[in-house]
Amino acid sequence: MADRSEKMKARLPRGFIDRSPEDIRAVEKMMATIREVYELYGFEPADQPLIEYTDALGKFLPDQDRPNEGVFSFQDDDEQWLSLRYDLTAPMARYVAENWERLPKPFRSYRSGWVFRNEKPGPGRFRQFMQFDADTVGTPGVAADAEMAMMMADVMEALGIKRGDYVIRVNNRKVLDGVLEAIGLGGDENAGRRLTVLRAIDKLDKFGPEGVRLLLGAGRWDGGKEGEGDFTKGAGLSEEQINRLVGSFMHLRPNAGQSDQDYLSAFFEDLRSTVVDTPIGMQGVTELEEIAELCRAAGYGPDRIKIDPSVVRGLEYYTGPVYEAELLAEIPNEEGQIVRFGSVGGGGRYDGLVSRFRGEPVPATGFSIGVSRLMTALKNLGKLDTSNVTGPVVMLAMDKDTESLGRYQRMVGELRQAGIRAEMYLGGAGMKAQMKYADRRGAPCVIIQGSSEREAGEVQVKDLVEGARLAQEVTDNKEWRESRPAQFSVREGQLVEAVRGVLEAQKAERGRGA
Amino acid sequence: MADRSEKMKARLPRGFIDRSPEDIRAVEKMMATIREVYELYGFEPADQPLIEYTDALGKFLPDQDRPNEGVFSFQDDDEQWLSLRYDLTAPMARYVAENWERLPKPFRSYRSGWVFRNEKPGPGRFRQFMQFDADTVGTPGVAADAEMAMMMADVMEALGIKRGDYVIRVNNRKVLDGVLEAIGLGGDENAGRRLTVLRAIDKLDKFGPEGVRLLLGAGRWDGGKEGEGDFTKGAGLSEEQINRLVGSFMHLRPNAGQSDQDYLSAFFEDLRSTVVDTPIGMQGVTELEEIAELCRAAGYGPDRIKIDPSVVRGLEYYTGPVYEAELLAEIPNEEGQIVRFGSVGGGGRYDGLVSRFRGEPVPATGFSIGVSRLMTALKNLGKLDTSNVTGPVVMLAMDKDTESLGRYQRMVGELRQAGIRAEMYLGGAGMKAQMKYADRRGAPCVIIQGSSEREAGEVQVKDLVEGARLAQEVTDNKEWRESRPAQFSVREGQLVEAVRGVLEAQKAERGRGA
Repeated sequence: MADRSEKMKARLPRGFIDRSPEDIRAVEKMMATIREVYELYGFEPADQPLIEYTDALGKFLPDQDRPNEGVFSFQDDDEQWLSLRYDLTAPMARYVAENWERLPKPFRSYRSGWVFRNEKPGPGRFRQFMQFDADTVGTPGVAADAEMAMMMADVMEALGIKRGDYVIRVNNRKVLDGVLEAIGLGGDENAGRRLTVLRAIDKLDKFGPEGVRLLLGAGRWDGGKEGEGDFTKGAGLSEEQINRLVGSFMHLRPNAGQSDQDYLSAFFEDLRSTVVDTPIGMQGVTELEEIAELCRAAGYGPDRIKIDPSVVRGLEYYTGPVYEAELLAEIPNEEGQIVRFGSVGGGGRYDGLVSRFRGEPVPATGFSIGVSRLMTALKNLGKLDTSNVTGPVVMLAMDKDTESLGRYQRMVGELRQAGIRAEMYLGGAGMKAQMKYADRRGAPCVIIQGSSEREAGEVQVKDLVEGARLAQEVTDNKEWRESRPAQFSVREGQLVEAVRGVLEAQKAERGRGA
Repeated sequence: MADRSEKMKARLPRGFIDRSPEDIRAVEKMMATIREVYELYGFEPADQPLIEYTDALGKFLPDQDRPNEGVFSFQDDDEQWLSLRYDLTAPMARYVAENWERLPKPFRSYRSGWVFRNEKPGPGRFRQFMQFDADTVGTPGVAADAEMAMMMADVMEALGIKRGDYVIRVNNRKVLDGVLEAIGLGGDENAGRRLTVLRAIDKLDKFGPEGVRLLLGAGRWDGGKEGEGDFTKGAGLSEEQINRLVGSFMHLRPNAGQSDQDYLSAFFEDLRSTVVDTPIGMQGVTELEEIAELCRAAGYGPDRIKIDPSVVRGLEYYTGPVYEAELLAEIPNEEGQIVRFGSVGGGGRYDGLVSRFRGEPVPATGFSIGVSRLMTALKNLGKLDTSNVTGPVVMLAMDKDTESLGRYQRMVGELRQAGIRAEMYLGGAGMKAQMKYADRRGAPCVIIQGSSEREAGEVQVKDLVEGARLAQEVTDNKEWRESRPAQFSVREGQLVEAVRGVLEAQKAERGRGA
């Protein structure tokens, strides 16, 4: 209670945001569509808590620039460490391992929710964000990975993104492992270095081939020149290693339009040559070929799902196929820059994550959609229109005695009974402020009943949309004749009918305007 | 990566739960209904992050049995303390204070989300739970409190709870303050003691009048007898103080049926006598009278909204009217005990919470619904049926070559195109395990295409519901004739049509069974 007397500063912690009503509605609309696709594919909803034992989450985050490695952690009263989840996959793995015996296998589930990263916040980079995942656990075959890629394609199209405006790119960590082995980075002793290399390649879209070369070699300055910005230490590869590595995915990066069967055969031949007969690499290429073939046979050609050896995905737990949904449209990103929008989600196979708990192989694959990133893209593509939500009808509080307020509330209640969004003005202000409030709320009309109207058993209905239109110049005679009266009286008993009439007229007008 | 080799124990932290698909669907259905009511009343969606600066949240929790006072907290890298929100009201107050200038006033918003309590977990007592709130900020008049009570009543009825099976109980902290002043507990020096007293009264439903008397006096043993269970220290009031206090709300607690105007007049007279002319108490009674009158005039009688001097609400930040939605039905609670279900939500006026940040009065009132508690009640009342969700049609994986799997996926894709939930079996197991899987998933039918069917250009459709029925004894000749074939062949091109036929027949059958 002590703090109440001194004035505190109201402020959001860095890296967190308050969401607007428009964004909340847009996300809800988008997620309902995604959920429908997941359900159609036979996935079931699931939900884990936001807090897990720290050790159960493991340490798989990329770019750990914090001492506690990117995770918010705290000790429980029994001294065990708890953490806020950094993704939805690790808690899901814990859940599946804990309940394995009683689950249908394969276990197909979807889940959405907030995840947290204890990272340096920046523009478009938040410490709390929402993901929407789907996972299949308990199946080793690449048919499950192919299905994930197809489902991501279906999600894109269900959201109204046209074919050609997106692509699902697929690679295999085993191919990358083969290439790395071929250039002398095989074996357990090079595990850390391989990870640095993968993370460097993962930056291809962000920094371009030259930036990746720096990260593979000595390192890279954020500002582009020596001494400018932060320095990221590189993997320390030799010039020759870098050339072979970058060549292996750069010249193989497919372009739009390259899609026919001949091309694909040649492509996979090339890919085989880059892994130089390493068993892991050869297995990786074979799996990619199977995925491409499964997708083709199911009707998903390379215009939707494309094999691309430059896809990495940053998380450490992937063990096989990885995939990424990319928007090709040039639209503003979260930072307002007009760019090829890029990745809106992705995932891959993580055969080690559940088996950590089980001591037996439990293969699994799944993907995650970055909800607010995808929502930003869809809004900018004009695919998430929520402007059909109208503001409430506002009953002005002309008289403030208990009797009048009760009567106003009763009228407002009648409107609601009829399914009309309505409220009584509850502030203390006068007529002018009340009208301003109605305007701010986007009210379609206000209802007025002062003492004279009450005595006559009437109410005034003031159409705010029509009022605004009449206030502008009416240039056309026909238009003038067609205009509705901006304010009129009705009997109290006809209030609902009158308001409904106003709403319908406004709706018809919006329809004509569109 | 090191942890991968050693087997870890998969376990949930204490006080947290994984939600079942049924519960997730039930909560979604329930929340959609609540959201509709909030929207009808003109409230807008809002959303704050789950993490706030610790000092911004304040210390208003009841029953703080932990050293860090019921909240999960951790230090940011700039050494500032952050906490997980313990309710949705405190972050909302921070948001409104921070954005006050640009918000419409009054500001009417609703929000749902997870909140966290760092408490000792127990049966039905979780450390993460969901709330669904609505708040009006910027209006001092009790018309806003009355509206909250009415909206809670509307929420109950929209959820299918019959009038008479719930009641919204309303009190005023000012009345309680008046009574406390009258028995000598006024003044700043008694603030802590007043809080202990309020929390004791708040336990009336849980411990009964005798339990409350103990908590007002020397204290109470959890086990009921001295030395049994934990001891809660009491407020240390004298026998006479306790008598006056308990009398003040006990003999005034309204019973069902007491509802007419005469009763109310007498009731408020009585209530005035308990506050013994203390100015704060008299103001409280007047406000309660106004609320009762506003509700009555709007058509909400005491069968829905009842003034009840025993309502307290545990949170420290309430300053005026408090209200509580209570379910009167005797149904199993979260612990499985059949009891009068009790409170499913509540709230009150918190005029100090936003003004802590503003240094000017910003009056506010709002309520919070305990989502999982209300969902439990509705499920037990049979009001949240989600059994209309059917399992996916399962395409068996008879052949596992890439060509066949691709073809199966294409057929499954055609079913989905037609809006039919469907999946290809992705596990590695044989026919028997695949059928068991389909059964576990509640599949309406399975699709089978082995090599002989493929050559004939056909698929088999096996109706699992009909199959189960035929497997039971068919005693009636007519029934036998009417039974659908449990398995039949169709041309590949007629798959969608055939499956739709099976689904429709099953739906009709469920309709007849109901």
